[in-house]
Amino acid sequence: MEENDVNRSAIQEQIKLQGEVVRKLKADKAEKDKISEEVAKLLELKAKLGDDSQKTKFVLKCPKGTRDYNPQQMAIREGVFNTIIKCFKRHGAETIDTPVFELKETLTGKYGEDSKLIYDLKDQGGELLSLRYDLTVPFARYLAMNKIQNVKRYHIAKVYRRDNPAMTRGRFREFYQCDFDIAGQYDAMIPDAECVKLVSEILNQLDLGEYIIKINHRKVLDGMFAACGVPDDKFRGACSAVDKLDKTFWDDVRAEMIQEKGIDPIAVDKIGKYVELKGRTELIDKLLEDEAMKAQKSAVEGLEDLRVLFKYLELYGITDKVVFDLSLARGLDYYTGVIYEAILQGFAHNPKAGADGDESVSVGSVAGGGRYDGLVGMFDSKGKKVPCVGVSIGVERVFAIMESRALASNTKTRTTETEVYVVSAQKNLVEERMKICKELWDADIKTEQSYKRNPKALDQFQYCETNSIPIAIIIGGSEIEMGVVTLRIVGSREERTVQREKMVEEIKSVLANLN
Amino acid sequence: MEENDVNRSAIQEQIKLQGEVVRKLKADKAEKDKISEEVAKLLELKAKLGDDSQKTKFVLKCPKGTRDYNPQQMAIREGVFNTIIKCFKRHGAETIDTPVFELKETLTGKYGEDSKLIYDLKDQGGELLSLRYDLTVPFARYLAMNKIQNVKRYHIAKVYRRDNPAMTRGRFREFYQCDFDIAGQYDAMIPDAECVKLVSEILNQLDLGEYIIKINHRKVLDGMFAACGVPDDKFRGACSAVDKLDKTFWDDVRAEMIQEKGIDPIAVDKIGKYVELKGRTELIDKLLEDEAMKAQKSAVEGLEDLRVLFKYLELYGITDKVVFDLSLARGLDYYTGVIYEAILQGFAHNPKAGADGDESVSVGSVAGGGRYDGLVGMFDSKGKKVPCVGVSIGVERVFAIMESRALASNTKTRTTETEVYVVSAQKNLVEERMKICKELWDADIKTEQSYKRNPKALDQFQYCETNSIPIAIIIGGSEIEMGVVTLRIVGSREERTVQREKMVEEIKSVLANLN
Repeated sequence: MEENDVNRSAIQEQIKLQGEVVRKLKADKAEKDKISEEVAKLLELKAKLGDDSQKTKFVLKCPKGTRDYNPQQMAIREGVFNTIIKCFKRHGAETIDTPVFELKETLTGKYGEDSKLIYDLKDQGGELLSLRYDLTVPFARYLAMNKIQNVKRYHIAKVYRRDNPAMTRGRFREFYQCDFDIAGQYDAMIPDAECVKLVSEILNQLDLGEYIIKINHRKVLDGMFAACGVPDDKFRGACSAVDKLDKTFWDDVRAEMIQEKGIDPIAVDKIGKYVELKGRTELIDKLLEDEAMKAQKSAVEGLEDLRVLFKYLELYGITDKVVFDLSLARGLDYYTGVIYEAILQGFAHNPKAGADGDESVSVGSVAGGGRYDGLVGMFDSKGKKVPCVGVSIGVERVFAIMESRALASNTKTRTTETEVYVVSAQKNLVEERMKICKELWDADIKTEQSYKRNPKALDQFQYCETNSIPIAIIIGGSEIEMGVVTLRIVGSREERTVQREKMVEEIKSVLANLN
Repeated sequence: MEENDVNRSAIQEQIKLQGEVVRKLKADKAEKDKISEEVAKLLELKAKLGDDSQKTKFVLKCPKGTRDYNPQQMAIREGVFNTIIKCFKRHGAETIDTPVFELKETLTGKYGEDSKLIYDLKDQGGELLSLRYDLTVPFARYLAMNKIQNVKRYHIAKVYRRDNPAMTRGRFREFYQCDFDIAGQYDAMIPDAECVKLVSEILNQLDLGEYIIKINHRKVLDGMFAACGVPDDKFRGACSAVDKLDKTFWDDVRAEMIQEKGIDPIAVDKIGKYVELKGRTELIDKLLEDEAMKAQKSAVEGLEDLRVLFKYLELYGITDKVVFDLSLARGLDYYTGVIYEAILQGFAHNPKAGADGDESVSVGSVAGGGRYDGLVGMFDSKGKKVPCVGVSIGVERVFAIMESRALASNTKTRTTETEVYVVSAQKNLVEERMKICKELWDADIKTEQSYKRNPKALDQFQYCETNSIPIAIIIGGSEIEMGVVTLRIVGSREERTVQREKMVEEIKSVLANLN
């Protein structure tokens, strides 16, 4: 055995022992911190082995929770992005971009319980960095840094969360967000209503089927918690428990509020009554009459906002697409006003189905957002606020739906736009093909040819059919002699002879007819 | 003083002392490793302070070497990407995407000396990850993992290098690459010639002025090194020294070869004669007659390849854009055949100008690439090779040029596509404006309005002018009474009265005329 192998055996033995330590701790239900500590040691040992063994045993994969996009998936992705960007631009949005990582401290203290999911970069000297967790915090940093008071921008980019991925359900550790936000000190509910209208336009154009946009207000939630007797400092905890109502049963949420958040069961049961309520303006009116609610200034302010919002949404013609739903809470800490979330009806949540492993479960939520008036101020040295409201489209879920549809319909998505394939009908014509390709490329015609000197005719025609290329330009000895080419319409196999100098013109006219 | 403050003072004192240690070592020209060690300690101390002080002293910035893109920059960026993508698609390319990070071992051993510039993620349990350094290695991993034998794909995405950024010269730690590659076992030089043709199309369409595409061949270089008497194991070192010839003088390169790479001065001086050579087919012929060169099988193979390549490039009509340049080496280890690099003539390198801080210096190289037949095999368990050739467009340099042009021309790039702005001419018309906006959005007309209930007329018209919005739809009490709107052409200030029910139709016809 070589020295290297001796080392490997020693490490493997250590890994085995350390593995038993971890298993025992887990079996004994030891303290979480203690287990983590021993798991870390185990991983360190495994990493040592990994470095030594990479030459002999190489794992060929994407990192956990990430994926490649193949050309078919890219074609679908681009279609979805184009639809969404068109809607963003229809509302006059500009776009910006920010780096994929931020100073670690930029992200600190913005995400509450979820901060543990942030990816940190290794300290290699210099600044401490983390991958962005969403596009909202970088946007707020951008506004504060550039002292921008108002802007309407969209941003489409990847974000990173060290979550336990459920990839078959369209959840990843690296995934796209498509955000639209309106920043500025404006009059109540005008930008908020436009965000909701925009969501409905996007969902209509993506043609994902029936959907409903749930609406609530953080001040209504806070007022509700106060009305039920929850102390102020437990609002955010109660909120994050209520947020789980779209994924789980009330009994579980109730248990979490009582056991984990330490909220009085009497208060929790009162909350239970409120979060069942759904409606439109009649529910707003009813709650404004509710004795417990109307005693809470915060609740009244939120409800007055919602009254204005629902009036605007009626003017925007989308009353039938929205519902005021007191169970909507949204997870993130930074919301301060109206919040909303769009749910696809065909994929509505059914907790029971989850146990059966139904993959369509929980793909329901496809967009969400709300008002966050305090976030930019956290970055300003004088705490100067820039009120913001925005929406984020859950495109990964949209991709998943579109991909399964494409699969089901069995139609092939074209992944290139090639218009002409230049075919040689006999040997030693590669240079002639090149001359034709040059001419077509220079005329802005999308053209391909075989990269073989003497490709088989059948292979070349097969390539056209497989790739849905509409036109083949065929050359052989006789064509060259006569100064012509043969133009074949691949779909109909119809052929015609075209003068070499009329080739470009003829192709353009055929393409115009085919489109 | 609170406990925290006491700690801070202690650390600040330590930082001061450690700073002096580092300064002294540097002054004494101590060993590099020793200095690095002490600098690391200093940074660790500073990091401690950073964590404690983040609440009181928050640094609002992008990480070193990165930047935000504002809407103007994004408009330029999108224009550049669209031009490039159009060229890629004209050559029948599909697109793929890969994750921003890869397993660390995927990147290991691919970049030679540059590996130290790879960003690692922190070990937070689970896999060891690194940010991608280029798009070529992830592409090779993708091909091997999916057992793909041939594909023509482009990939536009950000890559990461912990380099010392010179941002004013368009060099960043986070930057875009635009790659086009042809994978597959094909006949010699056919895909290679298409890559060079593609580069020339892209540079023509981007309209960056005169350029030249330098061409060389790794086999010619290896043959040249052998012909000069460099031992095999010093080829890569000699290559990476020659690669610096576009940034520095021969004397410096000569010194590096002799002192750092340990190459015999006699061999180095012979190399010096060869790397001065530039030409086209006549140079190929001359070298094939060169006694020292023609004794090297590798050199002859490379020169024969180049002879075919130059014939194809003539058919593609770009002989005047290319030059065979023996000083071109390209830094990366993985090239095995033809290599090329496009240089903008207006920004050609001048080492002297560098000292004067001229920012246009070294912006010259805007595209580069070559053949790499061994890389995919490094990922295959059986070492199965997939030959590849490709090109990478240096878009950050293109952005920099376009931005400085936009700045110089003083023309404002539109950052939105808004077609209509809905103006209220008097108070309390927000709801009327909303009805009109809804109608226009639903008719797919890009429309904005003020987010204030009662905006000033002047502010609204000012907004149209500032943002180059072509049409204003104006409503006041009298318009509403008569069932009309006033349509104003913002550019000419010409106004006309339009029946409310004809509004959409009229706007569409005005827009069609304006375009």
